[in-house]
Amino acid sequence: MEGGKKVLPEIRRDWVTNRWVIFSPARAKRPSDFKSKSPVGHEEEQSNSCPFCLGREHHCAPEIFRVPPDDPNWKLRVIQNLYPALSRDVTPPPADETPGQLMTGFGFHDVVIETPLHSLHLSHLPPSQIALVLGAYTTRILHFLSDHPSIKYVQVFKNHGASAGASLTHSHSQIMALPFVPPAVAARLHSMKDYFNRTGKCSLCEFNSNDLLIHQSPHFVAIVPYAATFPFEMWIIPLAHSPHFHELNAHKAVDLGGILKLMLGKMALQLNNPPFNFMIQTSPLRDSASELPHSHWFLQIIPQLSVAAGFEIGTGCYINPVFPEDAAKVLREVNVLPSEGDD
Amino acid sequence: MEGGKKVLPEIRRDWVTNRWVIFSPARAKRPSDFKSKSPVGHEEEQSNSCPFCLGREHHCAPEIFRVPPDDPNWKLRVIQNLYPALSRDVTPPPADETPGQLMTGFGFHDVVIETPLHSLHLSHLPPSQIALVLGAYTTRILHFLSDHPSIKYVQVFKNHGASAGASLTHSHSQIMALPFVPPAVAARLHSMKDYFNRTGKCSLCEFNSNDLLIHQSPHFVAIVPYAATFPFEMWIIPLAHSPHFHELNAHKAVDLGGILKLMLGKMALQLNNPPFNFMIQTSPLRDSASELPHSHWFLQIIPQLSVAAGFEIGTGCYINPVFPEDAAKVLREVNVLPSEGDD
Repeated sequence: MEGGKKVLPEIRRDWVTNRWVIFSPARAKRPSDFKSKSPVGHEEEQSNSCPFCLGREHHCAPEIFRVPPDDPNWKLRVIQNLYPALSRDVTPPPADETPGQLMTGFGFHDVVIETPLHSLHLSHLPPSQIALVLGAYTTRILHFLSDHPSIKYVQVFKNHGASAGASLTHSHSQIMALPFVPPAVAARLHSMKDYFNRTGKCSLCEFNSNDLLIHQSPHFVAIVPYAATFPFEMWIIPLAHSPHFHELNAHKAVDLGGILKLMLGKMALQLNNPPFNFMIQTSPLRDSASELPHSHWFLQIIPQLSVAAGFEIGTGCYINPVFPEDAAKVLREVNVLPSEGDD
Repeated sequence: MEGGKKVLPEIRRDWVTNRWVIFSPARAKRPSDFKSKSPVGHEEEQSNSCPFCLGREHHCAPEIFRVPPDDPNWKLRVIQNLYPALSRDVTPPPADETPGQLMTGFGFHDVVIETPLHSLHLSHLPPSQIALVLGAYTTRILHFLSDHPSIKYVQVFKNHGASAGASLTHSHSQIMALPFVPPAVAARLHSMKDYFNRTGKCSLCEFNSNDLLIHQSPHFVAIVPYAATFPFEMWIIPLAHSPHFHELNAHKAVDLGGILKLMLGKMALQLNNPPFNFMIQTSPLRDSASELPHSHWFLQIIPQLSVAAGFEIGTGCYINPVFPEDAAKVLREVNVLPSEGDD
């Protein structure tokens, strides 16, 4: 492997997602030649009317909390989405209902404003501030766990750049609390359980490939998955077995903030600041850890370098022009200099 | 229903795809206000160097067949893809192999050049010429069925417009023959079988909603599905139960050509000539019709009006801002004038 040139396509299945991916080098440039054609700029020109900036709080939907509490010089705010996809104001379905073909659109759709300053991206923040963002996610999830029995899964995600789905440029992420376990999550859990039943082990605890490793921190490892769906897809995985993201403590959050910052920095430098999405892939909210020896949360980062077209929509199967070992080597070797304000 | 204004979001499950979709009118414009912001033009300026144009056959990968055979004034050509995602030159896996985590990238990736003329889109062609394109698909699939026992599924698809994944503007579609049944197909078959086991009926034979109907021809019906994943998604379904697209005969192909032309015309007129994908959703190649009382092929058309972002990637669940009944009403009512050269 080790980044050598491969000529023949390969079809790989990921044990976590149970997805087949076609690796097709005939379509590829050299792995190091991949660059975004539509890089995301700082877009400071829009800051005059940005509702997420410090001092424009009255242009936003209601605030849920801020950090520090009650501080006009806040470091982050969690607010309601002004255009929520689901409504917190309808009657929730009974917590034990088996869903049929139709549910009312009950749920929560929050926004995390990650910094008061318009010109900063998440990757510019020091690890301790990124840890505050991660802590805001866990605070919100723990609230849904204790106070909203109809909520079955919470999806945390970030869209960065217009073509990755971000409608505002000010750095933010989103939290959607759902009254059902979504299909991709159910499929992932099913696949990981299948692996566990076959081997007696958690498929993510088992990771040990130097060829796919990008970086290791005290509590996390950053890798390219064996059957990456997208070119330069990255997963950040806790080293200790842990089914639920919301169990993250403040100490590990700073470590995760550091490795997330590093991965976003490497991606921006290597791939020309591409639009990207990240998603926290966790377990259904109400399954206990003892029921989940097979499930292990991770943070998935996907730079947007390609479009899903007819083949992908039709089959659910993706074509990736970059072998994971080659992507990992490129990302391992790109050097990011520490920025001002880092811890 | 009937296009009336709805205020509250709904969550619907499709019995065919088993997918949950969030219908969220709070994010929507009026259904009739949806327009593509990046319409596809005729792009005639590129025709001077187009390898798919009449007379430039020597710039293409090898031809598989043309219609009419051996005619220098061909109406369509089926050729190998110059950059195939899978290779026909590697050893195929044994036909009865249960796939593990890795397969060699055996398969076929063909291109159908739908017209010799650069300036024509598929929807400009008369139904009889569209029927030739559909017939080219069935000819190729029947060849894989008889001559390549390792091929388990054939995905036919069309990408129209650069942002829908088309790398060349000359009207073409693609055929990919796969050595495995892809995950979205397996999930669809599983869901349709589940419906059949519960009700004793095929879920697509059961369609009878006037609210979701766009158009009916002698042998086909065009609808918006009950839980459409994408805004203005359309399905064209044969009225008679039929698991395999490749059983389409020449007579019905002309009828399908007509209703496909009509739907593409309505979509282009209503939505400002959007980039789009269409996919033929059929059954695994080697399952016999008697094993498939639950499976019914259809042609799925998806205009590209939105991007799949972090929420969709993370959950496999989509947010659609247009209720299917509203989309069907808009598409039912838009009038396309017959174009020159129509049968």
